[in-house]
Amino acid sequence: MEAKEQDVSLGANKFPERQPIGTAAQSQDDGKDYQEPPPAPLFEPSELTSWSFYRAGIAEFVATFLFLYITILTVMGVSRADSKCKTVGIQGIAWAFGGMIFALVYCTAGISGGHINPAVTFGLFLARKLSLTRALFYMVMQCLGAICGAGVVKGFEGKRLYGTLGGGANYVHSGYTKGDGLGAEIVGTFVLVYTVFSATDAKRSARDSHVPVSHQRHVTNNFFKKLIKKILAPLPIGFAVFLVHLATIPITGTGINPARSLGAAIIFNDDLGWDEHWIFWVGPFIGAFLAAVYHVVVIRAIPFKSK
Amino acid sequence: MEAKEQDVSLGANKFPERQPIGTAAQSQDDGKDYQEPPPAPLFEPSELTSWSFYRAGIAEFVATFLFLYITILTVMGVSRADSKCKTVGIQGIAWAFGGMIFALVYCTAGISGGHINPAVTFGLFLARKLSLTRALFYMVMQCLGAICGAGVVKGFEGKRLYGTLGGGANYVHSGYTKGDGLGAEIVGTFVLVYTVFSATDAKRSARDSHVPVSHQRHVTNNFFKKLIKKILAPLPIGFAVFLVHLATIPITGTGINPARSLGAAIIFNDDLGWDEHWIFWVGPFIGAFLAAVYHVVVIRAIPFKSK
Amino acid sequence: MEAKEQDVSLGANKFPERQPIGTAAQSQDDGKDYQEPPPAPLFEPSELTSWSFYRAGIAEFVATFLFLYITILTVMGVSRADSKCKTVGIQGIAWAFGGMIFALVYCTAGISGGHINPAVTFGLFLARKLSLTRALFYMVMQCLGAICGAGVVKGFEGKRLYGTLGGGANYVHSGYTKGDGLGAEIVGTFVLVYTVFSATDAKRSARDSHVPVSHQRHVTNNFFKKLIKKILAPLPIGFAVFLVHLATIPITGTGINPARSLGAAIIFNDDLGWDEHWIFWVGPFIGAFLAAVYHVVVIRAIPFKSK
Amino acid sequence: MEAKEQDVSLGANKFPERQPIGTAAQSQDDGKDYQEPPPAPLFEPSELTSWSFYRAGIAEFVATFLFLYITILTVMGVSRADSKCKTVGIQGIAWAFGGMIFALVYCTAGISGGHINPAVTFGLFLARKLSLTRALFYMVMQCLGAICGAGVVKGFEGKRLYGTLGGGANYVHSGYTKGDGLGAEIVGTFVLVYTVFSATDAKRSARDSHVPVSHQRHVTNNFFKKLIKKILAPLPIGFAVFLVHLATIPITGTGINPARSLGAAIIFNDDLGWDEHWIFWVGPFIGAFLAAVYHVVVIRAIPFKSK
Repeated sequence: MEAKEQDVSLGANKFPERQPIGTAAQSQDDGKDYQEPPPAPLFEPSELTSWSFYRAGIAEFVATFLFLYITILTVMGVSRADSKCKTVGIQGIAWAFGGMIFALVYCTAGISGGHINPAVTFGLFLARKLSLTRALFYMVMQCLGAICGAGVVKGFEGKRLYGTLGGGANYVHSGYTKGDGLGAEIVGTFVLVYTVFSATDAKRSARDSHVPVSHQRHVTNNFFKKLIKKILAPLPIGFAVFLVHLATIPITGTGINPARSLGAAIIFNDDLGWDEHWIFWVGPFIGAFLAAVYHVVVIRAIPFKSK
Repeated sequence: MEAKEQDVSLGANKFPERQPIGTAAQSQDDGKDYQEPPPAPLFEPSELTSWSFYRAGIAEFVATFLFLYITILTVMGVSRADSKCKTVGIQGIAWAFGGMIFALVYCTAGISGGHINPAVTFGLFLARKLSLTRALFYMVMQCLGAICGAGVVKGFEGKRLYGTLGGGANYVHSGYTKGDGLGAEIVGTFVLVYTVFSATDAKRSARDSHVPVSHQRHVTNNFFKKLIKKILAPLPIGFAVFLVHLATIPITGTGINPARSLGAAIIFNDDLGWDEHWIFWVGPFIGAFLAAVYHVVVIRAIPFKSK
Repeated sequence: MEAKEQDVSLGANKFPERQPIGTAAQSQDDGKDYQEPPPAPLFEPSELTSWSFYRAGIAEFVATFLFLYITILTVMGVSRADSKCKTVGIQGIAWAFGGMIFALVYCTAGISGGHINPAVTFGLFLARKLSLTRALFYMVMQCLGAICGAGVVKGFEGKRLYGTLGGGANYVHSGYTKGDGLGAEIVGTFVLVYTVFSATDAKRSARDSHVPVSHQRHVTNNFFKKLIKKILAPLPIGFAVFLVHLATIPITGTGINPARSLGAAIIFNDDLGWDEHWIFWVGPFIGAFLAAVYHVVVIRAIPFKSK
Repeated sequence: MEAKEQDVSLGANKFPERQPIGTAAQSQDDGKDYQEPPPAPLFEPSELTSWSFYRAGIAEFVATFLFLYITILTVMGVSRADSKCKTVGIQGIAWAFGGMIFALVYCTAGISGGHINPAVTFGLFLARKLSLTRALFYMVMQCLGAICGAGVVKGFEGKRLYGTLGGGANYVHSGYTKGDGLGAEIVGTFVLVYTVFSATDAKRSARDSHVPVSHQRHVTNNFFKKLIKKILAPLPIGFAVFLVHLATIPITGTGINPARSLGAAIIFNDDLGWDEHWIFWVGPFIGAFLAAVYHVVVIRAIPFKSK
């Protein structure tokens, strides 16, 4: 049980970390410090009997709950004021979204990988960083957390006011076409998932290692890998979310996270929220797909590598 | 005396760090790099004779003093202007609270653990990270520091103006019920204390270590643990405070720190400040309790572990 | 092919990292841990046959595309609102520029060095950190990416509105002379390129190493060098861009990046955008030249060093 | 010459780093990894013949020049607009001051220690971290840099406008007494210098080291010390400056840096700037004195330590 606890870290495959350090397994590297990790299996039955699997789902639920709670409450606070100047402003809303992703990814990266977003889960699944079982479980828990988070905000604000103020739901704003909205969601999610891939790239730590490595260097590289993936990556990821909000709040209110859009739409439950809801699933998934392709094919060139 | 100096670091138990490195004590780990630290005793008489205990209390006093000074002064600057546009705005207030927590936790983590908040002290006490004696001492010093900090601001602003402008005291704003205010304090403090627990989790550094470890790996892990707890943790913790302020300033002005609420209430000393003051103690303590339960039971699963 | 992948990291020469660690090459250091890397050749034919060269160009293209897309879209969002209070404001625009540079440098530093700016490429070329071939290739890709990024924004906003609102193009604002604008671009780019040089200085990691070094110390220093160059440098670099925008948006809208100015000017395609366009090439290149001179002559004192 | 290059790092004494690692000098520690560094001499004649001494002064000049240029230009941009809503706002001014200190301390910490502020130099001198010669040299260079930086801004803005808009000079604003202003400068500078001391505390890295240390542990601690002092400290220091500005811009415009106040006053050259100019030297120096006393006497308890 214990040995299963950290099986999905932020965008990384678990297997290499299971190998004993300083053992014969090491010598298979023949001069390379880095090995392409094998793709995660589609189904991994052993996951379903491990506590860490369910704990990861709970962590995703709680994180997405807190994400929606803080962000939608911030949106409500800005919306209900008679003057935007007396609020944290639209920029404050962008900080709420980006800052929460930073803090929550930092806190949950070691438990569930810190996705908090079905589009991120989808992108990492395409790159075969986690199993299909786990991807689907995460997405369900994220959506449930988002619904509960938005629900609590509705409870605080009161049903009538919440409805009047839009409930933080995503829709294409006037002056833009549905195509603009879809495009904004695609490019915005590309920025986010591209950052997730780049910032958590396990290869990054091993780039300078094409020399016979000592045991010590291996330890240092391992340390470096952990430092990047679990500790430093949350900052650029959170900033990516902040930046996309700065740019696209005027267009769609910024989704780039289907769970966030779904939670707000279900609790708001108005035609305005539902008519264009497909945009906030199709757009992010296309963006995540393109980012995964860019990372795997162009940056890592995995398909062209000889075995 | 010297050897007592660093006995409480940010949310961590001190005992494991006292063990000589590279000695026989190591071999008790039988293949694990991480050991659940024993809970802190309720009373530790030896603390009371150590300078580091009193120094930690002084550091908490000074930090909470500076925290209230900067934050309440920022609130006053925004309140006294005729137009919010000519001030740092509500978002600037949120930055003042979150930014000060970041800087002060960074500065005092090595001295007292950098709590600066009775709710954080309470949460860490529940997880048995520090003794009851120390917890009570910290809370008293935090409250005294907060009172002095708010007092200096009142001196600068003038008694009449300070009273007119609300003195930065917390109360439930019109349009919200007491239940909303209590709920906002509970969830807000949960966000903060959850971040404190996650960001300072000593286990985090040892997650990948279920292999026979070399002496060197132990040193690296120890280094990693220090890096996380004392250096990197302040950033997500400060951000958590910033984010909760973005969301709940419109509801209660945001307490999530009983010392901050008490200091402002005592110096403001108006019915408005006292009537609902219980909310800013009960709410944060419930939030901290829930965060401690979530961390200990769900994330760490300590109750279910075999010895 | 594999061995070529990391040949330009952020502002650094590649050669020293190719030397086997712990071999005879080490002993040439005679007690110094750091060696002035040899200047990059003007033309390096072998680059042109390596995939990593073209991949780096693609990464620069994609990064500059995303940079212009997010930033110009943010500018448009602020421009089209009837009240600045309902937008992220001018400060939000500054965050968009600085934040994108932070995130993109973090993501692409390991692939192309993360320049995303012809002035940065020019400054690093002057310090002989990369070949002329590579410098020209990067500049072309950056300009193409910028044009595409601004083009997508025009597509979203609509041709008429985009033209009315200025399209994010740089020009000298009324109340300032062309000389003021040129000066602002020179000093602003100096701030940026000075930060790039300082934050990525390979020597930084070796400053305390004038003692006989063990193999281990070498590994630690190498690790430190990677940590600074690839991981921590993006934050001050992004902040430098943010700060220059805070100061000089009222003067020129802030260029300090010829690709950004060119992309906006081509897509805006108005006399206003073209008349003073030379300022946004001449200014940044002079600023980058001065920063390179300051770093090489004053800070590093390379010309005065005995061999 | 080479060996002199890094003789003052951020708030640290140089001597311990000169000792050969792994030599007999080590064994004097008898089980302690950390030694109180000897105080810097008042006069160190050898400094005056080293290039690094003059280079450090030049770096302080350039950094303070850029600091005043960016910050005063930001202040001017906010002042000249007809509506604060169309500018980066008062919060943007606070970011300019804090952000520049972050970036400049990051860039110059390895060259001069990155003071950029006579009050910081004074505080570190009181703690005997640098010689009197060096302290005076730094202060002169900082003041010269500040004057030049403010002068360039005046050139851009035009003499008449610069005078009308106040030129970024510090004075006690209406509604506050001179005592309030002096108090705000004292506490504000205390926050800054307290952060400088805490964030760069060399002891921090050695706190857990009261056990027989291996050579390796020493290397790790050394690495940790460098990481804290040169790389991570700039962030809390920059934030401290940002936070003090959020709080005290409404009172004095915020000095906490005599060079900044002097530069603005000389270039503005109006009675308004000179009448209360003493406040912006006396206040910061008292604040720095109190912070040095607090750090040395309470936190480090150096006077009470047995030899």
